[in-house]
Amino acid sequence: MGVVIPLDEARDPSAGLQPLLVLVSEDMAAVNHLILDKAVSDVEMIPKLAHHLIDSGGKRLRPMLTLASAKLSGYRGNGHVRLAAAVEFMHTATLLHDDVVDDSDYRRGKPSARLVWGNQASVLVGDFLLGQAFRMMVDVGSLPALKILSNAAAVIAEGEVMQLAAAKNTSTNEDEYLAIIDAKTAALFSAAAEVGAAAAARPAAEQAALKSYGRNLGIAFQLVDDALDYSGDSARLGKDVGDDFREGKITLPVILCFRRGDASERDFWQRTLATGDVQDGDLETAIGLMKKHKAIEATLERARHYGAIARDALAIFPDSGPRDALADVVSFCVNRVH
Amino acid sequence: MGVVIPLDEARDPSAGLQPLLVLVSEDMAAVNHLILDKAVSDVEMIPKLAHHLIDSGGKRLRPMLTLASAKLSGYRGNGHVRLAAAVEFMHTATLLHDDVVDDSDYRRGKPSARLVWGNQASVLVGDFLLGQAFRMMVDVGSLPALKILSNAAAVIAEGEVMQLAAAKNTSTNEDEYLAIIDAKTAALFSAAAEVGAAAAARPAAEQAALKSYGRNLGIAFQLVDDALDYSGDSARLGKDVGDDFREGKITLPVILCFRRGDASERDFWQRTLATGDVQDGDLETAIGLMKKHKAIEATLERARHYGAIARDALAIFPDSGPRDALADVVSFCVNRVH
Repeated sequence: MGVVIPLDEARDPSAGLQPLLVLVSEDMAAVNHLILDKAVSDVEMIPKLAHHLIDSGGKRLRPMLTLASAKLSGYRGNGHVRLAAAVEFMHTATLLHDDVVDDSDYRRGKPSARLVWGNQASVLVGDFLLGQAFRMMVDVGSLPALKILSNAAAVIAEGEVMQLAAAKNTSTNEDEYLAIIDAKTAALFSAAAEVGAAAAARPAAEQAALKSYGRNLGIAFQLVDDALDYSGDSARLGKDVGDDFREGKITLPVILCFRRGDASERDFWQRTLATGDVQDGDLETAIGLMKKHKAIEATLERARHYGAIARDALAIFPDSGPRDALADVVSFCVNRVH
Repeated sequence: MGVVIPLDEARDPSAGLQPLLVLVSEDMAAVNHLILDKAVSDVEMIPKLAHHLIDSGGKRLRPMLTLASAKLSGYRGNGHVRLAAAVEFMHTATLLHDDVVDDSDYRRGKPSARLVWGNQASVLVGDFLLGQAFRMMVDVGSLPALKILSNAAAVIAEGEVMQLAAAKNTSTNEDEYLAIIDAKTAALFSAAAEVGAAAAARPAAEQAALKSYGRNLGIAFQLVDDALDYSGDSARLGKDVGDDFREGKITLPVILCFRRGDASERDFWQRTLATGDVQDGDLETAIGLMKKHKAIEATLERARHYGAIARDALAIFPDSGPRDALADVVSFCVNRVH
């Protein structure tokens, strides 16, 4: 498919995650243990379905942000582990409900839970994991942390409804799309980063800095995800190039192509994405139009813009291992290929 | 259909709800105001879908339990209004997800939200309302109240999954069924009643009494609901007699009939509920078998048993208006015909 993704650094992009992995490795072992522990239920279907997703090897980037933020904030205690596990459960619950809403058959290169156990179980086990997430947060006992994460839960759902309402609408513009991903994706990144500082009762400016870091990182992450769906390597992505296209998802590369294109090109996007009439060769045509209009490059440029804001949000913190690790996550997200 | 429902009191059963309605009328006005306020969103579909269900005239029994429990506990403050609204939102979110899981086309005599807006929006708006519920609880700031309601959220979802796993399984026994309704229905009644006392920081024995009251009331409520589905008046129920039958739901009247019946009767239940092969006249046959085995009467007897436990749980409280109103709710639930 051969769209060239320009990297802003010449080194292996996955190297950007290494400092974070090292920084939180001990805490993440505790988080992973807690995740397994809280997916337990006497109701057999719950752990089976939950493990299907939990064991499928997501990066667990969001809980790592919580742990790193707690470290950066000098948090003393063990509540950060439960908050991080709660963040991951909120994310897992969202994935389960997303797959139902999107009719997705694959997730992380495996059949989706809804394909194996059905939509009904996916909805209900998602609800269970969300309930468990709130139990863990309450258990930590920090009202500021609870406020941040409960706000995120409502905002994420609001973003998902916005996305549903905009589905197949090729006239969605960039601002509208940014509002959607700000809510559905960036809100949890933002809450994950902010909650570590909130649990440590750091000054408002530091909490706001980590909130801004997480939010902009989340937007960048989503934009790169959107670009990869038209340009990535399927085997490494764990999903197929063209999934968004086949599902009629309106993402930034499409929005840019639609606006930069002529009438016949707009008819093409209308037929394939809005009407859902996708024929052999259409994905190749779509990718061709993206090359023509440099839509992938522009999407990645936008991602780098938000990544730069995220990095600068960290500037108020003195130089430290945790701060550098968080900054490197931005490079990872902007340059990732998997 | 003419199954006689024996009443344990000769008066109008709906009279049992009057003392509660009077007791909490002022607070309920505030709750109803808050419910409308928190269903607001810039995302147009959210208030539309939420109002469809909110305006459809449920009894709002659960939030009234929270308000009455707060009154019984001498609670001074205004957190009880937000807790009651949160309880109703948790219930509304569950109804939205239930309709998706059960493929239900009607709810409270109106087309269900999923029929009008689709399964996808129902799942996501349910998630939004649950998020709003948690926001309101966090806003009250009582960690004991948060603990009770977050536990309930996880237990309810667990109960729904249990019910899904037992669906169409005619060999489900009474104990297994009780465990399901204890989780999916009674847990929220229980939490609704307990949380009023918890917010008022009453002694553990009083909180436990209200928890037990709510739990047993909830079990009685569900059992009467199950009985009404085979014996009620459709126009007054807001749903059709036989809905559970057509959906293949295994409820206590069926469990009792199946166990008390002979081999050919079990074949009938197996064909209709497990296989889903329902023909004209089958509902009448089902109701006939329930008469033969006195399954409705037995279900209502069981309901009265749990109702008696609920009433006795209140015995540790001195005689008062709130206590009597809560006791009368038991009569209402056990004798209700709508």
